[in-house]
Amino acid sequence: MARIVMKFGGTSVGDVDRIKNVARRVKAEVDAGNEVAVVVSAMSGETNKLVAYCREIAPLHDAREYDAVVATGEQVTIGLLALALQEIGVNARSWMGWQIPIRTDGAHSKARITEIETDDLIRRMQDGQVAVVAGFQGIGPDNRVTTLGRGGSDTSAVALAAALKADICDIYTDVDGVYTTDPRIVAKARKLDKITYEEMLESASLGAKVLQVRSVEMAMKHGVRVQVRSSFSDAPGTIICDEEEIVEQELVSGIAYSRDEAKITLVKVADRPGVAAAIFGPLTAANINVDMIVQNVSHGGGATDMTFTVSKGDLDRAVKVLAEKKGELGYEDLWADANVVKVSVIGVGMRSHAGVAQTMFQALSAKGINIQVISTSEIKVSVLIAEEYTELAVRALHTAYGMDAA
Amino acid sequence: MARIVMKFGGTSVGDVDRIKNVARRVKAEVDAGNEVAVVVSAMSGETNKLVAYCREIAPLHDAREYDAVVATGEQVTIGLLALALQEIGVNARSWMGWQIPIRTDGAHSKARITEIETDDLIRRMQDGQVAVVAGFQGIGPDNRVTTLGRGGSDTSAVALAAALKADICDIYTDVDGVYTTDPRIVAKARKLDKITYEEMLESASLGAKVLQVRSVEMAMKHGVRVQVRSSFSDAPGTIICDEEEIVEQELVSGIAYSRDEAKITLVKVADRPGVAAAIFGPLTAANINVDMIVQNVSHGGGATDMTFTVSKGDLDRAVKVLAEKKGELGYEDLWADANVVKVSVIGVGMRSHAGVAQTMFQALSAKGINIQVISTSEIKVSVLIAEEYTELAVRALHTAYGMDAA
Repeated sequence: MARIVMKFGGTSVGDVDRIKNVARRVKAEVDAGNEVAVVVSAMSGETNKLVAYCREIAPLHDAREYDAVVATGEQVTIGLLALALQEIGVNARSWMGWQIPIRTDGAHSKARITEIETDDLIRRMQDGQVAVVAGFQGIGPDNRVTTLGRGGSDTSAVALAAALKADICDIYTDVDGVYTTDPRIVAKARKLDKITYEEMLESASLGAKVLQVRSVEMAMKHGVRVQVRSSFSDAPGTIICDEEEIVEQELVSGIAYSRDEAKITLVKVADRPGVAAAIFGPLTAANINVDMIVQNVSHGGGATDMTFTVSKGDLDRAVKVLAEKKGELGYEDLWADANVVKVSVIGVGMRSHAGVAQTMFQALSAKGINIQVISTSEIKVSVLIAEEYTELAVRALHTAYGMDAA
Repeated sequence: MARIVMKFGGTSVGDVDRIKNVARRVKAEVDAGNEVAVVVSAMSGETNKLVAYCREIAPLHDAREYDAVVATGEQVTIGLLALALQEIGVNARSWMGWQIPIRTDGAHSKARITEIETDDLIRRMQDGQVAVVAGFQGIGPDNRVTTLGRGGSDTSAVALAAALKADICDIYTDVDGVYTTDPRIVAKARKLDKITYEEMLESASLGAKVLQVRSVEMAMKHGVRVQVRSSFSDAPGTIICDEEEIVEQELVSGIAYSRDEAKITLVKVADRPGVAAAIFGPLTAANINVDMIVQNVSHGGGATDMTFTVSKGDLDRAVKVLAEKKGELGYEDLWADANVVKVSVIGVGMRSHAGVAQTMFQALSAKGINIQVISTSEIKVSVLIAEEYTELAVRALHTAYGMDAA
C-alpha cells in the first residue's frame, strides 16, 4: 500500500470519454490498495478560451479577475472526475484550491504555493476517499483565487505530494517517459528508467518540454519522487529521483537541444573594465535574457569581441537596444545570427569523470560540425552550432556516448 | 443617491460585447452617484453545457459535484464584468458566493439562502467600489459550493438587496416590464407601472415567466422593491412593491394563462368519508401535484364525480396510478383531457369589490366559452376551459376589465 498523487493534464481530460478513462486508471490504483489524490488540469482548450475572453475585454487586465475567470477550467474538471469516479463505485470528492486550502503568495496569475493544509485530506484518504484536486490554483492572502501560471498543474501535483508525504507523484502525459533524446530525431533514443532531479532540471531548462521547470525544482527541494508516464498505457515511465537511488549511474543521461537561440557578436568592443555591464545592463532593462556569453581574447589596440545568445523572439529587440547604445559602447560592428541551435550533453556522472566534453568535441568534429560557442556547468556541456546540423549532431552524440538502443 | 442592486441574466451577458454593454449601464448608475452591487448569471448556454457534461458522466449525479461544476458559469461572468468595468474606469471587484459569504442550507442544487454577510461589501460600496456578485450560488454548511436551482440568480439578487437594505433591486431582462397580459396574444396589453407582490406571485405561479416565484416570495417577505426592466432600453420598467405604495389600485391587474394543465374526472366515485384522501394520497406519493379540485353533487346511490387538474407532463403517470387503484377507489370510469387551459384574472382590488368573478363569467359566456372548472383565491379567479379558446378568452377578459391600451 502506498500513498500516491496522480496528475492528469488537459489532453488526458479533454472530453467526457477521456475523463471516464482517467477514472478507470484511478480506480485501478484504489483497487490495488493505495491512498490516492488526483490533480487535474482544465479540459484542453478551455483555459485558452477563458484567457481569450479576458484579453478581448481588457488587454491589460487585473490579474485578480483574470485568476477568478481562468481558475474555473480546473473547477469543472474536478467535479466531472469526481462524478465519473463515483459512477464506477469509487468514493471521491472534489477540492478547489480554497477549500483545502492551498495557500499561495499574492502574485496573481503567477503565484507560488506557500502552504497546503492536509490533515483533512489525509484523514479522508485513509478512510478510502479519493481527493480530486484542482491544479493550477490556490488562494492568496487576500482570500481571492490565485493561479500559478501556465503549466502550473505539475507544480500543484508535486507540492501536494510533498505536503502529503506521498510515496510518488505520477505525472500522466502524452509521452511514456523521459528519453535519452528527442525520439523524433533519434530513432534509437531510449526511455530512461530513472533520472536525477539535477539532470531533469537541466533538460527542462534546455528545451525538453516534459515537465515544468518549477515542478522539478520543487520535487528536488522536497525530495518528491516523480514518475512521468503515459495516460494511455500501463507501462512504467521514468522516475525522477535523488542521485543515491540510481544504482548504475550512467555517465551521460541525455542529449537536449534548443532551437530557440540567436547569436549576437559585437566586434571590437573597447576592452575596458565595466564594458560587460554596459552591454548587458540595457538588455536586462529591456527584459531580455542573455544565455551563453563568450568574450574573445583581445585584438590589438585594447578591443575585444563579445558573443552571446538570446532567445530567437528577443533578437530584433536586442539588436535595436544595442544599436541605440552604439556610441556609448563603441563597437565596430554587430553581427546577428538566428540560424543557430544549442545542443547539450547532460549527466551527473560527468562530475566525477573527465573527458565528457572531449568526447563531444571529437564527435562533432568527426562530422565536420563547427562549434561557435561553448558553455559548461557541473553536469552539462552545451555548444552552439549552425541550426542545419541539429539532427546530425544529436544523432552523432547519442551514438558517441553509447546511448543507442540495441 | 441610492443603494441599488442590478441583476443581469444570461442573455444580457451572452458574449463579450453584451458584457461591455452591461458595464456601461452599471457605470451610468455609478456616475449618478449610486452605490451599486451587480448580480449576474452565466453567459447564455454555459449552464446548459455544464449540466450536459454532468448528465453524460453520471445520470444520477452527486449534487455536490454538480454544484461545483455548474457554479463555474457565474464565476466566469463576474470576473469578465469586473474587468469590463475596470476598463471603463469603474472601481469594481468580483465576489463568488463563498467569498462574501452567501450562506445557504445544505440542499445542494436547490439550496436556500440563510444569511449574507454584508459589512465588507457595504464598506466597499460606500468607498465607491462596485460589487460584482455571482448569482445562483452560495456556500453550504459543509464549506462546499451550493447552487439555488435554475433561475436562482433572481433570488440571489433579491436576497442581496434585502441584506444590503438596498433602495431597489433592478432585474434587467429581455422584456421591458410586467404586462396586463401576454402581449403576443393581446396587442393592446399595457405595461404596468406597479404591481403588488401578491399579484406578481399569483402571475408567476400561474405561468407568467417574468420572475422566479421564489424571488418574488423573498421580495415580499423582506419588503424589497423590485423593478423588472429591459437590458436594452432606458425606459422605466414595472415596480413590484407593497400594496400601500400603489395609490390608484386597479380592480384587476392582469390576465394570466397556463397551457400546462390536464383534467382528470373520476366518474361515480363512492361518496363516503376519506375518499378524497384515498384518491390524492397515491398521487402525492407519486410526486404528482394536483391543482384545481371540484367535487360534484352526489349522483343518486351515494356516488359522486371528482374532477381535478395536474400538469400535462404528469397526466400519463396520474392515469396509471389511478388505474392501479381502481378496485380500491371503486369509480366507474376515468376521463382524461389534455386539451385544456387555465385562464386567471388577478387583482388585489377584488378583495374589496364584489362582481369581479361575475364579469369574468359573463365575458366568457358572451363568447360561447364553456367553463369546466372554477377555482378562486382572495385575489384571483381561475377557470379551466378548452384550450382552443385560449386567445379568444384572454382578449375578451382584457377588454371586459377595461384594461385595453388606448
